[in-house]
Amino acid sequence: MLREMLIRFRDGDITLEEAMKEIEGLRIETIGEFARIDLGRMMRCGMPEVVLAEGKEPGHIKQIVAGIVAARRICIVSRLSTPEDGEIRRFAEEKGFQVRYNERARMMVISTGARTPLTGGVVAVITAGTSDIGVAEEARVIAEEMGCRVCTAYDVGAAGIHRLFPALRDCLDAHAFVVAAGREGTLPAVVAGLVDRPVIGVPVSTGYGYMGKGRAALASMLQSCSVLTVVNIDAGFTAGASAALIANMVVDGR
Amino acid sequence: MLREMLIRFRDGDITLEEAMKEIEGLRIETIGEFARIDLGRMMRCGMPEVVLAEGKEPGHIKQIVAGIVAARRICIVSRLSTPEDGEIRRFAEEKGFQVRYNERARMMVISTGARTPLTGGVVAVITAGTSDIGVAEEARVIAEEMGCRVCTAYDVGAAGIHRLFPALRDCLDAHAFVVAAGREGTLPAVVAGLVDRPVIGVPVSTGYGYMGKGRAALASMLQSCSVLTVVNIDAGFTAGASAALIANMVVDGR
Amino acid sequence: MLREMLIRFRDGDITLEEAMKEIEGLRIETIGEFARIDLGRMMRCGMPEVVLAEGKEPGHIKQIVAGIVAARRICIVSRLSTPEDGEIRRFAEEKGFQVRYNERARMMVISTGARTPLTGGVVAVITAGTSDIGVAEEARVIAEEMGCRVCTAYDVGAAGIHRLFPALRDCLDAHAFVVAAGREGTLPAVVAGLVDRPVIGVPVSTGYGYMGKGRAALASMLQSCSVLTVVNIDAGFTAGASAALIANMVVDGR
Amino acid sequence: MLREMLIRFRDGDITLEEAMKEIEGLRIETIGEFARIDLGRMMRCGMPEVVLAEGKEPGHIKQIVAGIVAARRICIVSRLSTPEDGEIRRFAEEKGFQVRYNERARMMVISTGARTPLTGGVVAVITAGTSDIGVAEEARVIAEEMGCRVCTAYDVGAAGIHRLFPALRDCLDAHAFVVAAGREGTLPAVVAGLVDRPVIGVPVSTGYGYMGKGRAALASMLQSCSVLTVVNIDAGFTAGASAALIANMVVDGR
Amino acid sequence: MLREMLIRFRDGDITLEEAMKEIEGLRIETIGEFARIDLGRMMRCGMPEVVLAEGKEPGHIKQIVAGIVAARRICIVSRLSTPEDGEIRRFAEEKGFQVRYNERARMMVISTGARTPLTGGVVAVITAGTSDIGVAEEARVIAEEMGCRVCTAYDVGAAGIHRLFPALRDCLDAHAFVVAAGREGTLPAVVAGLVDRPVIGVPVSTGYGYMGKGRAALASMLQSCSVLTVVNIDAGFTAGASAALIANMVVDGR
Amino acid sequence: MLREMLIRFRDGDITLEEAMKEIEGLRIETIGEFARIDLGRMMRCGMPEVVLAEGKEPGHIKQIVAGIVAARRICIVSRLSTPEDGEIRRFAEEKGFQVRYNERARMMVISTGARTPLTGGVVAVITAGTSDIGVAEEARVIAEEMGCRVCTAYDVGAAGIHRLFPALRDCLDAHAFVVAAGREGTLPAVVAGLVDRPVIGVPVSTGYGYMGKGRAALASMLQSCSVLTVVNIDAGFTAGASAALIANMVVDGR
Amino acid sequence: MLREMLIRFRDGDITLEEAMKEIEGLRIETIGEFARIDLGRMMRCGMPEVVLAEGKEPGHIKQIVAGIVAARRICIVSRLSTPEDGEIRRFAEEKGFQVRYNERARMMVISTGARTPLTGGVVAVITAGTSDIGVAEEARVIAEEMGCRVCTAYDVGAAGIHRLFPALRDCLDAHAFVVAAGREGTLPAVVAGLVDRPVIGVPVSTGYGYMGKGRAALASMLQSCSVLTVVNIDAGFTAGASAALIANMVVDGR
Amino acid sequence: MLREMLIRFRDGDITLEEAMKEIEGLRIETIGEFARIDLGRMMRCGMPEVVLAEGKEPGHIKQIVAGIVAARRICIVSRLSTPEDGEIRRFAEEKGFQVRYNERARMMVISTGARTPLTGGVVAVITAGTSDIGVAEEARVIAEEMGCRVCTAYDVGAAGIHRLFPALRDCLDAHAFVVAAGREGTLPAVVAGLVDRPVIGVPVSTGYGYMGKGRAALASMLQSCSVLTVVNIDAGFTAGASAALIANMVVDGR
Repeated sequence: MLREMLIRFRDGDITLEEAMKEIEGLRIETIGEFARIDLGRMMRCGMPEVVLAEGKEPGHIKQIVAGIVAARRICIVSRLSTPEDGEIRRFAEEKGFQVRYNERARMMVISTGARTPLTGGVVAVITAGTSDIGVAEEARVIAEEMGCRVCTAYDVGAAGIHRLFPALRDCLDAHAFVVAAGREGTLPAVVAGLVDRPVIGVPVSTGYGYMGKGRAALASMLQSCSVLTVVNIDAGFTAGASAALIANMVVDGR
Repeated sequence: MLREMLIRFRDGDITLEEAMKEIEGLRIETIGEFARIDLGRMMRCGMPEVVLAEGKEPGHIKQIVAGIVAARRICIVSRLSTPEDGEIRRFAEEKGFQVRYNERARMMVISTGARTPLTGGVVAVITAGTSDIGVAEEARVIAEEMGCRVCTAYDVGAAGIHRLFPALRDCLDAHAFVVAAGREGTLPAVVAGLVDRPVIGVPVSTGYGYMGKGRAALASMLQSCSVLTVVNIDAGFTAGASAALIANMVVDGR
Repeated sequence: MLREMLIRFRDGDITLEEAMKEIEGLRIETIGEFARIDLGRMMRCGMPEVVLAEGKEPGHIKQIVAGIVAARRICIVSRLSTPEDGEIRRFAEEKGFQVRYNERARMMVISTGARTPLTGGVVAVITAGTSDIGVAEEARVIAEEMGCRVCTAYDVGAAGIHRLFPALRDCLDAHAFVVAAGREGTLPAVVAGLVDRPVIGVPVSTGYGYMGKGRAALASMLQSCSVLTVVNIDAGFTAGASAALIANMVVDGR
Repeated sequence: MLREMLIRFRDGDITLEEAMKEIEGLRIETIGEFARIDLGRMMRCGMPEVVLAEGKEPGHIKQIVAGIVAARRICIVSRLSTPEDGEIRRFAEEKGFQVRYNERARMMVISTGARTPLTGGVVAVITAGTSDIGVAEEARVIAEEMGCRVCTAYDVGAAGIHRLFPALRDCLDAHAFVVAAGREGTLPAVVAGLVDRPVIGVPVSTGYGYMGKGRAALASMLQSCSVLTVVNIDAGFTAGASAALIANMVVDGR
Repeated sequence: MLREMLIRFRDGDITLEEAMKEIEGLRIETIGEFARIDLGRMMRCGMPEVVLAEGKEPGHIKQIVAGIVAARRICIVSRLSTPEDGEIRRFAEEKGFQVRYNERARMMVISTGARTPLTGGVVAVITAGTSDIGVAEEARVIAEEMGCRVCTAYDVGAAGIHRLFPALRDCLDAHAFVVAAGREGTLPAVVAGLVDRPVIGVPVSTGYGYMGKGRAALASMLQSCSVLTVVNIDAGFTAGASAALIANMVVDGR
Repeated sequence: MLREMLIRFRDGDITLEEAMKEIEGLRIETIGEFARIDLGRMMRCGMPEVVLAEGKEPGHIKQIVAGIVAARRICIVSRLSTPEDGEIRRFAEEKGFQVRYNERARMMVISTGARTPLTGGVVAVITAGTSDIGVAEEARVIAEEMGCRVCTAYDVGAAGIHRLFPALRDCLDAHAFVVAAGREGTLPAVVAGLVDRPVIGVPVSTGYGYMGKGRAALASMLQSCSVLTVVNIDAGFTAGASAALIANMVVDGR
Repeated sequence: MLREMLIRFRDGDITLEEAMKEIEGLRIETIGEFARIDLGRMMRCGMPEVVLAEGKEPGHIKQIVAGIVAARRICIVSRLSTPEDGEIRRFAEEKGFQVRYNERARMMVISTGARTPLTGGVVAVITAGTSDIGVAEEARVIAEEMGCRVCTAYDVGAAGIHRLFPALRDCLDAHAFVVAAGREGTLPAVVAGLVDRPVIGVPVSTGYGYMGKGRAALASMLQSCSVLTVVNIDAGFTAGASAALIANMVVDGR
Repeated sequence: MLREMLIRFRDGDITLEEAMKEIEGLRIETIGEFARIDLGRMMRCGMPEVVLAEGKEPGHIKQIVAGIVAARRICIVSRLSTPEDGEIRRFAEEKGFQVRYNERARMMVISTGARTPLTGGVVAVITAGTSDIGVAEEARVIAEEMGCRVCTAYDVGAAGIHRLFPALRDCLDAHAFVVAAGREGTLPAVVAGLVDRPVIGVPVSTGYGYMGKGRAALASMLQSCSVLTVVNIDAGFTAGASAALIANMVVDGR
């Protein structure tokens, strides 16, 4: 492109001013390209943009959703409250968008077309108790939207550890594990001690009293001797996206 | 006694003033008895008095030790630093006392005579790692001085959980378990899930970073779903004394 | 059993495949037995399973309750909110289950039949103030379901310490004490200084301002010089179950 | 004074300019007086100025001490470390000052002359354990320098509560109580429940583990139901000065 | 009394058993007297008992109130919510009790008769802002019920420090100062620097963000160099009772 | 004035007592003037007084507003809740005041007349996300009322950093920057690294989990290596007023 | 194997007792296999065992090292202090072991033979400042021992962000990134926004004041909107092992 | 430059490849320029680069210093410990650099030549006590190196507020104020209430007990109603640089 422009300039097809303007444009484009790297990255890994609904008005959410779907063909809305979900869904369907709503995750996937094709990546999502399922589903939705197959094993801690082993056996082909747990939050370290795959712990804001609301879980995950990485309390999305990123890399082999 | 005194008074063996003085003495004795209950209790359970050496000068410690041994025949000095231990030992031996020093627990037992006879109570003391042994030994010393047999299993967490099961098998006749653990502190809950005996968790001040120094361990023990009670960080003495109290009760059958 | 099977195999009563299958079954049973230890323990101590209602939907609770009562004949639902309790009760009664509801504890005991027979174990439950009663009742319900007689002394701190002494006298045959206290939380240490029995402190989430919501109580219980173990803030269930476990052990004499 | 000046002006003894200058001086003096109120207050209650030695160089301390003693005839240096105390003492004695050093309080009183005469005010200083004595002595030194008689009862908690009652009986004529306690810090509330005098609690930075270093003591003093006021951890000086201020007021009857 | 009994026994007017029973009664009375000291103290200082309504049901409150008024002639109910106050008032008035309700303090004084006579004690209650008035009124109600005259100066910080000086001038005859302040909480230290009377700081739970809800105020009061004692966040009652106790002592001159 | 008074006194127009009274009045006026400095300062910088509506009743707010507008011609009410804003507005309009209400900032400006004339000062207000806008508008309202032109760039972080550069280019003539950010709060440091103007960071109380509610943002702003000053979480007003103060100083050139 | 044994038994080659013993052995092996899973996992990923030297005596360390090297051929000792490193090295060399010591990481790799062969996995280790290098080297040592090539870029934040871009370009073939940062800790989120690879943030315990010692860094990493996982403060080892695990998986393509 | 290149290309002086290479170079230069903005900014405001010596080895510091002085002609080393300062000074002097060392600030200014010429900007640096002087000097050194005249008033709080007013009068021509204070940290708010200039508060890590080490000071500065911005605890450098930036802007009038 630069080559052509220079030739057209040498050949007198464009003036000196026009050439300079085009080159200046390149510079600006350079900064822009530089700054837009993060968007590029997101697209390259197939990670859709996520809009946090919490603390935004429905009107505002609709406007953002419309913009993102137009530009990127897909948009995820997270932490939707019950009265709002119907309103956003109606808006999206009227626009002719596809809508998939996961109630337990409180996440809505809005897109112009069909589901992301499977990449071959496999992510396991495991929870200690039933209260951890909402956060786990957040991880599942994003991992599926990034093309991974997700195998889940919920409530393996609460009903006794004897449920953990069959669950792990069913997930043996997973490339990465997301393990959500509240209260004392020890399940991620237990899983990390049993599988030879990366494990990402998600502390869940359950538990009362001293260091409740997920803080004890965060603390014990960070203090664990296991090879385990951690995300913020209730940050199912970040854990799911990290796991899917790893799974897709393994499948790609690079 | 009261009866005899009244009869002696009625019979004129003692005067009105003498009778009143004796009755007044009873009142005072009552208050005293009331106030001394805690001493009585300690003696009844065979729990020796403990002097915390940390923050006291050697001269002061000697004085206290001499007083307690005189009154109670036994005294435990805890958290002794290395330069002091020799000095206290010499002092005690010169006085003709028996001295038993546990270096890892930094505790010295000073007494007028032979060891406490065995009660038949059995206490298990288990640690996750080798850094927890000092705190565990603190528990062991007091439980032994209260007449219990102590079975220990140290480092069962750090070297892999496969050491836990043989360890538990060896301790199956224990009446109570003291389990010390630092960092994420999950071992006490694991043990509480495997034995049908009271388990007392002791958080140990190891671990660095966020919620280090035993605080993550305390948090995860308190948040645990297991039936588990807890003592303060590094409070091996309290855990050992509680466990021995339970063990001796079971043996007594009341 | 293994011996008989081998003999039957040698004698041609069963085929090679049948013998191998039975031996494989033994292996699986071994893992299962290993993993099911925790359930076994619960059953051996007569500790019923507890379902935390908080954060679960009524439909979900019903399903879990039905499953547990079917398998274990008894199930406790804790932290029930007022609208839900009626719904769960109706569901349980329609199923023909026995229902006992303790409103102050917000706990419902659902079972197929009669009450647990008394073991002879005695647990004392004491509170400092009237605001601590809900937590104390949680301890009482579980201890009673574990077959203990529970003697209670509520509000002995708030109305003046002169109520503590008669209360303690009435509880002298208790094998273990649960003492619940909020604000500065000193009552458990006071009781531990007066009785020669294990005392379990329960911090209660009362009190406002600096270190309110039970944190000052937790701190002062952990810092206490008394021989005292502690559970999490408001963890009446854990305290009651621990105390009943001890009481039943003493009665059993092993 | 103002009156005389005006008369001298009217009589022509001073000029208009001189009169105006004097009145302007009054205004400035007014601001000064206003700003100096705190100094005046200190002097009125006989509270000497205190120099915190911690974090200051000996040379600097000497200079400040010399200045204050010159202006106020008395100065207290607090938190003196062992190597420094000799140096400050020599300096003060060379200047011809009186020096009184309390080693446990690490406080040195330096003055031009005799001790403060007794006001008749009586302050009781009580500690739970022997580790609290340094902080208690800080309270004692300032209360004595403010003219109060100080009655002390140290270690009444550590050696068993039966020492508390005789101690309180000996202090029945105290006008205010300073009670220092570390760990769970309950002694101030106990004392406040037994005497009808103002009680000031001083948390002491002893105790390890969760909320150690005096924070549990501070928390339980603030959460206490007793009528009790509190100062910062280790702030013996503030407690002693407050108590002496109250005692002196009661003696003055205003 | 003891003397007469003994004489009657010696003279045969009462039997040996009757004498022993009476003496035993003395012993019990002794313990009782010992234990009831706190009640005696409260009565001696004229400090009425206070019932915290927060977290209690109206029915329960009524029962407690009736009991206390019967025994002590006066009872204060604090932290009453709006729907409850009418119900408690009606109940009290139907019983023929006197009711005084302070809405800003949310405190109700219920008594059998006339107001406490004035002792001559004077307490100043000062607030930094208008949000601190509720807490200040809590202090005022209890101080007035203890017989003190209360002079108030509210909002002297918020409207500019120029209101502080006239306010202090109006309170110059106060024997003790209660100063309530939220946010950064510096007013108590300023007042303590201007008056030669005991000042009690009350942190108020205003302020948002870092260390909001009164914690910054508590911290700055404890860290202050002024001679100042402190109570818990929002603890207007404790501050008012302490100040009244001091004021009454000064008036009594002992 | 003083001069005239003295002359009138010398000439016998006023008596000695009258002269003394006037001079005494001067002294009092001096103290008053001294104390009122802060009011003077506010007026000199054109900073209007702000009434925090949160926690005040509408009636109370009206009274304060009327007083301030009478005295100062302008008053700002902040943190108004939705039901109250209409009531305050009606009250102000009935009084004939000008009312400007910024709904996102929840601030109402009430004045007797026209808007503050522009000073020439320019303040930039930038936010990372859309949830930070309320706090940013608080800064904008006060800066505008102090006569500054405010240029805003909202949501430059959330929609990708490529929006930051055009935004900064549009704000290149700003004299000071207010940058509001929640969650990890890094935008202020980024801006401080790109402009050679004072930057004031405002942590915003968004974000959940560990160190949520603006605390992580506050921490990272304080820890930043950039030359950046900070205000409390959500303290848009303080940031805006500081920035406007700087901007106006630069324009004044002194 | 089982089949053969059964046939040999049927054929009379082994007795009933021998058959039973072998089957029992299978059961035990089953438990053992079950319990030893974690060791197996470590070996499968080539992750060597790590001994934390901190808080252990040299004699103890030597004993553990000898045991592990005997069993596993390699052992890493971490957090070695300067006097100890020579002693451990001499011991290891006398035993004929290979010793590699990384002084900045304070880690010593002790093995029976040659270095781990390269797997083809590539890990990037990046630091914000020079103070973060020790923690980063900890990550590097373990990643190299797991067979990864490690590319490092240290101090890219401290010397200006212009060093970040060339650094990232040099690391474009890395499969996973470890990014260590202290103070406000924003570099990991910046890197995560620029590369399409998993990024693991390591907060480093630098920084003073509010939330210093790595806590602000931990908070901002957890709060970040980037797809980023986190380990404990200073936990270079865990981050390096996680990254190498991912890199090796990608190379293996499973 | 671009123009010339294009003309030379059109004229055949350079080939197509040469032209493309030059334009490509421009692009890279653009990114570089973009990334180097922060350096440019520092230079434009005359803010010298600062090297934190704490935690770096002397050899490392020398290397960095040599590099920066070569590139920028000036470099500041902060938080130098006593043994190191001599070594760095000798190194710098041997290199022929100018060295200015401020011992109280522990900062060394190393430059190739004469002092920064005065800009006319004036910064006031004020401290509450003598312990705050080190932090204040840090602010002074950087402000002076940025060309400001610095007027200081140290210890105005500790010796009584009457020293504040003359101090402020001496600083009336300052364009910005840095106010350092430890313990309860109220001086910055007091100063902000008396001057109509920007005030930057620096909490100082003095004070013990609850919220000691500068945290209470930070809290009260953030909670203050005054228009005040804040930096991290002990961050004298940031405060001084911010104040100098403002002062220089005012002098420049833009």
